Amino acid sequence: MSSSDIFIGETIGTAILIVLGGGVCAAVTLKASKARNAGWLAIAFGWGFAVMTAVYVSGPLSGAHLNPAVTVALAIKDGGWANVPTYLGGQLLGAMIGATLVWLAYYGQFQAHLTDKEIVGGPGAQTTSAKAVEAQEQGAGPVLGVFSTGPEIRNVVQNLATEIIGTVVLILAVLTQGLNDNGNGLGTLGGLITALVVVAVGLSLGGPTGYAINPARDLGPRIVHALLPLPNKGGSDWSYAWIPVVGPLIGGAIGAGIYNLAFA
Amino acid sequence: MSSSDIFIGETIGTAILIVLGGGVCAAVTLKASKARNAGWLAIAFGWGFAVMTAVYVSGPLSGAHLNPAVTVALAIKDGGWANVPTYLGGQLLGAMIGATLVWLAYYGQFQAHLTDKEIVGGPGAQTTSAKAVEAQEQGAGPVLGVFSTGPEIRNVVQNLATEIIGTVVLILAVLTQGLNDNGNGLGTLGGLITALVVVAVGLSLGGPTGYAINPARDLGPRIVHALLPLPNKGGSDWSYAWIPVVGPLIGGAIGAGIYNLAFA
Amino acid sequence: MSSSDIFIGETIGTAILIVLGGGVCAAVTLKASKARNAGWLAIAFGWGFAVMTAVYVSGPLSGAHLNPAVTVALAIKDGGWANVPTYLGGQLLGAMIGATLVWLAYYGQFQAHLTDKEIVGGPGAQTTSAKAVEAQEQGAGPVLGVFSTGPEIRNVVQNLATEIIGTVVLILAVLTQGLNDNGNGLGTLGGLITALVVVAVGLSLGGPTGYAINPARDLGPRIVHALLPLPNKGGSDWSYAWIPVVGPLIGGAIGAGIYNLAFA
Amino acid sequence: MSSSDIFIGETIGTAILIVLGGGVCAAVTLKASKARNAGWLAIAFGWGFAVMTAVYVSGPLSGAHLNPAVTVALAIKDGGWANVPTYLGGQLLGAMIGATLVWLAYYGQFQAHLTDKEIVGGPGAQTTSAKAVEAQEQGAGPVLGVFSTGPEIRNVVQNLATEIIGTVVLILAVLTQGLNDNGNGLGTLGGLITALVVVAVGLSLGGPTGYAINPARDLGPRIVHALLPLPNKGGSDWSYAWIPVVGPLIGGAIGAGIYNLAFA
Repeated sequence: MSSSDIFIGETIGTAILIVLGGGVCAAVTLKASKARNAGWLAIAFGWGFAVMTAVYVSGPLSGAHLNPAVTVALAIKDGGWANVPTYLGGQLLGAMIGATLVWLAYYGQFQAHLTDKEIVGGPGAQTTSAKAVEAQEQGAGPVLGVFSTGPEIRNVVQNLATEIIGTVVLILAVLTQGLNDNGNGLGTLGGLITALVVVAVGLSLGGPTGYAINPARDLGPRIVHALLPLPNKGGSDWSYAWIPVVGPLIGGAIGAGIYNLAFA
Repeated sequence: MSSSDIFIGETIGTAILIVLGGGVCAAVTLKASKARNAGWLAIAFGWGFAVMTAVYVSGPLSGAHLNPAVTVALAIKDGGWANVPTYLGGQLLGAMIGATLVWLAYYGQFQAHLTDKEIVGGPGAQTTSAKAVEAQEQGAGPVLGVFSTGPEIRNVVQNLATEIIGTVVLILAVLTQGLNDNGNGLGTLGGLITALVVVAVGLSLGGPTGYAINPARDLGPRIVHALLPLPNKGGSDWSYAWIPVVGPLIGGAIGAGIYNLAFA
Repeated sequence: MSSSDIFIGETIGTAILIVLGGGVCAAVTLKASKARNAGWLAIAFGWGFAVMTAVYVSGPLSGAHLNPAVTVALAIKDGGWANVPTYLGGQLLGAMIGATLVWLAYYGQFQAHLTDKEIVGGPGAQTTSAKAVEAQEQGAGPVLGVFSTGPEIRNVVQNLATEIIGTVVLILAVLTQGLNDNGNGLGTLGGLITALVVVAVGLSLGGPTGYAINPARDLGPRIVHALLPLPNKGGSDWSYAWIPVVGPLIGGAIGAGIYNLAFA
Repeated sequence: MSSSDIFIGETIGTAILIVLGGGVCAAVTLKASKARNAGWLAIAFGWGFAVMTAVYVSGPLSGAHLNPAVTVALAIKDGGWANVPTYLGGQLLGAMIGATLVWLAYYGQFQAHLTDKEIVGGPGAQTTSAKAVEAQEQGAGPVLGVFSTGPEIRNVVQNLATEIIGTVVLILAVLTQGLNDNGNGLGTLGGLITALVVVAVGLSLGGPTGYAINPARDLGPRIVHALLPLPNKGGSDWSYAWIPVVGPLIGGAIGAGIYNLAFA
């Protein structure tokens, strides 16, 4: 694969991943969305099939890493780091494009949601929901969850552990399913299996932190949240931002290590 | 493929697409349906597996476009426009047949729903629901959503953008997955992957407009809504009707353009 | 295939189909079930994966018809009727075994549900729910729906039409997907696709009648309902029983006819 | 396969099975989980895709039994018992590791849930929920369900029967789908089909007992529940513990017997 194919493939693929993944969060969260309150199962399937779509589209160009944790795990497994910066650059750019497209697709819903006094409170208004108070204390506005993850209970050790465990499961599935299949995880069935593994991780390990399990998926949209001209958007919760970056990278390294010890 | 195979395949396939896709909207919406209020996840899976069923049935005859946006994208990609009118004709006819079959299958439910005073209000009655008032102002009766899509917030630019983004994702998946598979998107797994991409687009980008992403899927049933002798059906919202036709066609062209630039 | 393989395969397969399909109805309906009120999506996926399980288990023995409408459609398509009685006998016996196993697996739940005064009313008690009153007027006790289908609105023409339309979709998918695959609908992916077609039919066309789309699936469990010593079970609604038998058989014949005209 | 590959594969695989399967129970049950009250469909899909992930990861090493009932059924089918103790040891160890990882990933949620006076009652407080009273009479604390199964209605004969029926269905699918595929149930599609069979069994036969259908899945986490320093955790319900061990083993033997009689 050429460097430009890698960069373009990862950019397009991660943009699709985030426009669909961030999209389902917008769909379930925002006022005036037909899918509002569709529930956690919709979130988990939405992100899973977002991964599937992105994998099948970008696979022929870049091999469909779409996730720095996957890129790092494959570099550890194969011992080749030359293309890693190209992969990471495409992933971060793609995630930012995807998050911007979510804002475009849900433009009116963001406006309606963020100017609804019952939801965010106007200037001088009381924030009555306990969850909204906590979110504002953390600097997180009410729609940050459409862009990035955040924990239900803030605890650095637990939050890191949850992200690490989820990412190890993902990485082991990606590495071994690739071997079962045709060696690069992109065989006829590889994208579908990976999608359903992501559904599983979401249903099972998403409860505490919202399962970033992918640094680009969290950091790119968080940057976009900080830049977009959204009314009443609140802070971007930068104090938490390192956990969904570092946790998945540690998980990727541990997953590759387990793979090299037990499966290689 | 012969012209008659193309026309028959697209007619049968699009009829199946709409009888199942429109059917799930009827099932979730109408009074006296066992599936009433089954929720957005039921809508998204219902339309996705409708696509899958239609693709597998019509694939051997016509290649299973079932969507003018797909037909246009493939014509741009391959540079061949000769069969395009045959495809479009079969798709529109099939969509109209499918919508009529939904009416037949849910005949009693339509009658019960549309003559329920609490739901539609009788002559001279007050329409109390704010959403019903808004719908009537737009000329859209309460069951139009079983036939055609409509936006939660009317905004031509956003509504077009949402339909374009959703269609670009669909088209990229159809074109590249076909290459991964066996070249025409109809391989053993192609129909299933396309189905789950449609589930993804529905869950993620369906919130603002109801994701037509297919001109025939929207226009054909809208014509049938205008023609059917449904009591208290209200208008067919023709002022919106061009958006779910033009948006997906633009999306198909953009998708094919991205494909030709990045993947070909 | 030998006659005994056909009979044993259809018996085991249809028993699995009904123990899982009837099981999900019991799970969602009965008091003291962990899955109570899990909703229509659970019903639709439950029946779909029931079909999938039964197809993969019985395929090697009997070709996994599991449904008289499929058997009749294949006989029309291929012109061979010699094995039809063997298929039908195994299907009916299997359906009765499956329904009996549902009763065994949910024995305590049936007892708790049917002796709960709030649900069924005791001797001399008032049946207060309008739906329960209607059900009793039809002779249908409150748990008949665990065994057999029934319409929300009784209308012979519509009820037949709904069953016919659903069965035509199923039969077209079975016949053409078989051709796409490996000729008998039992290839590696055939059972999964058939399962998801059944999910689609359930989500989309199940609202009015509960989608029997299979005479054995409805008649076998109805006989078992009539025979089992369930307290307060009410009648078995024999006046409706012919519709989910005749409708699917007509649908099977129409589906085979369309196939022979358009696809053969 | 070497003994060490079998042991390591089963340990890793069953740990993944339980961290995801137990994880979805924690996600849906515990306070301060984003997925709380996501419903039975989330449980059923969560366990199904947990099985899928574990099968694809451990398949290349150990053949992915992950369940003593599968190991026993294959031993009966093939007449080879030499590796059975290695399989069972890995499965039990893996299940205990997985349950411990659930506790780590949901550490704060366990603490918040078990110290919430409204949920568990403090020292001297009244347990007001009828279900909580019943659970405490059985010695089962409110979060035991995250670890192990328990019946809605205690009835040894029915509880055993439900577990046996569910396991027979699972075993027949594993044995015959293996033959359809490539002889060991681990072909490209084998893991996905097995996953969806587990979803089916959960939706359809999970209502009465919570569908252990796997002795290691129930016993390993129950031991961990007894050992973990959880506040107010209540008893581990050892009086019920033998049923989800013995029932699935009987079901595995019956399933293998049916297979040998009808399919071999």
